[in-house]
Amino acid sequence: MTTNPLLPLRDKINELDKALLELVAKRRELSTQVINTKIKANIPVRDIQRERSLVKSLIEQGKNYHLDDIFIKRLYQIIIEDSVLLQQKILQEKLNHGTIKTAKIAFLGPMGSYSHSAARRYASAHLEQIVESSCSNFKDVFEQLDKGVVDYGVVPIENSSSGSINEIYDLLQSTNLHIIGELSLPIDHCILAIPNTQLDQIDTVYSHPQPFQQCSHFLEGYPHWKIIFCDSTSSAMEMVAKSNKTNYAAMGNKDGGELYGLQVLEHSFANQKENITRFIVLSRDPVHVSDQIPAKTTILMKTGQQAGALVDALSVLRNHNIVMTKLESRPIHGTPWEEMFYIDLQGNLYSDEMQNALKQLAKITLYTKVLGCYPNDSITAVM
Amino acid sequence: MTTNPLLPLRDKINELDKALLELVAKRRELSTQVINTKIKANIPVRDIQRERSLVKSLIEQGKNYHLDDIFIKRLYQIIIEDSVLLQQKILQEKLNHGTIKTAKIAFLGPMGSYSHSAARRYASAHLEQIVESSCSNFKDVFEQLDKGVVDYGVVPIENSSSGSINEIYDLLQSTNLHIIGELSLPIDHCILAIPNTQLDQIDTVYSHPQPFQQCSHFLEGYPHWKIIFCDSTSSAMEMVAKSNKTNYAAMGNKDGGELYGLQVLEHSFANQKENITRFIVLSRDPVHVSDQIPAKTTILMKTGQQAGALVDALSVLRNHNIVMTKLESRPIHGTPWEEMFYIDLQGNLYSDEMQNALKQLAKITLYTKVLGCYPNDSITAVM
Repeated sequence: MTTNPLLPLRDKINELDKALLELVAKRRELSTQVINTKIKANIPVRDIQRERSLVKSLIEQGKNYHLDDIFIKRLYQIIIEDSVLLQQKILQEKLNHGTIKTAKIAFLGPMGSYSHSAARRYASAHLEQIVESSCSNFKDVFEQLDKGVVDYGVVPIENSSSGSINEIYDLLQSTNLHIIGELSLPIDHCILAIPNTQLDQIDTVYSHPQPFQQCSHFLEGYPHWKIIFCDSTSSAMEMVAKSNKTNYAAMGNKDGGELYGLQVLEHSFANQKENITRFIVLSRDPVHVSDQIPAKTTILMKTGQQAGALVDALSVLRNHNIVMTKLESRPIHGTPWEEMFYIDLQGNLYSDEMQNALKQLAKITLYTKVLGCYPNDSITAVM
Repeated sequence: MTTNPLLPLRDKINELDKALLELVAKRRELSTQVINTKIKANIPVRDIQRERSLVKSLIEQGKNYHLDDIFIKRLYQIIIEDSVLLQQKILQEKLNHGTIKTAKIAFLGPMGSYSHSAARRYASAHLEQIVESSCSNFKDVFEQLDKGVVDYGVVPIENSSSGSINEIYDLLQSTNLHIIGELSLPIDHCILAIPNTQLDQIDTVYSHPQPFQQCSHFLEGYPHWKIIFCDSTSSAMEMVAKSNKTNYAAMGNKDGGELYGLQVLEHSFANQKENITRFIVLSRDPVHVSDQIPAKTTILMKTGQQAGALVDALSVLRNHNIVMTKLESRPIHGTPWEEMFYIDLQGNLYSDEMQNALKQLAKITLYTKVLGCYPNDSITAVM
């Protein structure tokens, strides 16, 4: 029996990786000390100058070790973004009276869906313990929240490949719920099969139509695969798991696959390398957002039908130096040809600019409503 | 004068970051030892099982430090991909007789263009010293190479937002040059202005139509900006630099902006968060690709006009278990209604499967030509 000549080197790498993780964890401890100091001294969480000079100096230092600048940038983008999110989280918890112990959270089920992953992710960052409530449609999520059956609802609002999820916008039109948070989840469709299956055994693939569409280039490489549509990726995974057949595969997410005992045969093959879904978190009560962190405010607005009405409204925002990050229009239920506008704004609801802008908007629009103000978690490190 | 209470903590973070860079550099040294061992023992560079188990164990270890699994995955995706590319590079250099000392490299200019950045990036990884040749159009790049004026040509072939660059495909139709490499460059459009300018001073922005289109959502937030089209982002930057006006800005890339002495006022605002351009590297001579690394082979193919001709050709590839990563069709010069197919395949040109598949393709197509075989640098770590 020959031993793998790489083993001694891999042991060294494993040791080094352990040290690397420890350093990263220590860096997070220092970030915690940083935010505590910032809270005391009322200093904003983001410091663009600091982020920029930090990365610049690291790129300089990296040259001594022949480290490529793009490599250092990619690495520190992740480290800085994690640090900012950690600081925002600690600040928000202090402001909103500590970590919530146990909460009920609703999402579009069944277990193993992308919404389920998003709900778990939000919970692991913000809640100590959760009770999961899997709903069969988006309306149920809103209703369970409204009736007080659950404390939070997590629903997708847009996907980087396939765009906005209109149904959610329509449900937001008539709700009294508040948006209290957002989170973005990278969507990585996988080919999942029962254990000990090889990719070349597969001849039939089950999934929801959307993953098939988002991975069409990959599927062109397997023209002999029979494609079968299911109503969700979860039901596809369940089907494949129950069938126990080595020629069946499901296309779905890895976390979900694990719940059904399936293994990943292939992944990272979507047409667009970065496929991200943004989710919003809803609650009956609004949340307080510290003025030390970047906030987003989402408003709903109905303008008159006269020409230039939307431009007038957008000019109000511009005149108050408020940056719009998303504008979505949807028809109004029961009144065809009239449109409702959903606008995501950078800024805290209780800032002077936002309050003044909203007062002016109230004067020139038929209807303006704040859907929520929440921490901006779409963080991009500045380099 | 008050001192910033964060300074002592930042000093600690700076020290920690230095240690972190050193660890990362040491890890690359170990990767170098790994590839030398792999070369001696003829072991493939990629080891999916190892990548997967490494990340799995790091996620387990990370739990002790309260590190989020997505955070660890993102971090190690970058570290593993860097390690694989480093190993591929060392292996290829050994196979192709060491680092090339000085080479001439052609790209679509002027200086500061995205192609210029790509050429510099390829050179910094593969060549010791370069002489840059800035061409005014893609045809020039091909001609300078053909005539022996330069040794390499770097041209964009596709962009994740705007798709394939047809002109390059058309030039490839009648060339004798070989594709010897590929590289993907993240495109991050920036708002660039002369030093000491603030964003709210800007009222006019210069750029090529494509960046404007790719950043339309961001521009909606500045409806008062006058948009002026230029024939390249470089000429836009040059214009703004020469004007010396604080109300002018250019939209272009950061590296280019530095060449013209411009500063970044804003960035990371494109509609699609991840905007990547894939470039190919051309040369008169083909390159040898080690069978220890994943290779790509690009072929050009003309099928007959009978129904099912393309399907028959693709079936040949499938029957030889060859995965197609891209299929592009282009009309043939001078013969309207006839199409040429460009196909990127996973696999080494000199593997048995590829040779057998090509022999069969030659029988059932009108024309098949190999455009090149090169290391697959579109690495995705498996987790």
